[in-house]
Amino acid sequence: MFKVKAIIKRRKSILDPQGKAAEQGAKLLGLNGVNSVRVDKMIDFMINSNDSDEAGKIADEFCVKLLSNPIMEDYEFTLEKVNES
Amino acid sequence: MFKVKAIIKRRKSILDPQGKAAEQGAKLLGLNGVNSVRVDKMIDFMINSNDSDEAGKIADEFCVKLLSNPIMEDYEFTLEKVNES
Repeated sequence: MFKVKAIIKRRKSILDPQGKAAEQGAKLLGLNGVNSVRVDKMIDFMINSNDSDEAGKIADEFCVKLLSNPIMEDYEFTLEKVNES
Repeated sequence: MFKVKAIIKRRKSILDPQGKAAEQGAKLLGLNGVNSVRVDKMIDFMINSNDSDEAGKIADEFCVKLLSNPIMEDYEFTLEKVNES
């Protein structure tokens, strides 16, 4: 079994409206000095497999085909083997 | 200047519909063995301050009042001092 932590980030060059909105909100709340806010996705999941190559392939396909938008997002993930209990 | 990395997670006991949808999608794509998908938010931002106490207070307030929903989400953040260039 593998525990996967994937991070999906919008490319730096692409505007992040959610981050901009949060930044604006901080200003309205009087939180001075907050800037460069970027909101990204972090996805945790498990893969039932004992082969790290297979698990890596599944995680990669999951990220490419479903979790990220390849036009404007980059992804990275880490695999961690966990013992079944 | 401080670089802040905040992670907003839905509590384990609360259903995560976005994660469920991704899990369902993985099944439809034929990616077997993907389960326990949880989609969380990761927010990176900068705080213009040289006082770590003040920066911590601002980051905490930003998380509580704006970034997280205290009814069903937990948050954590790390502060990292960066040199202004």
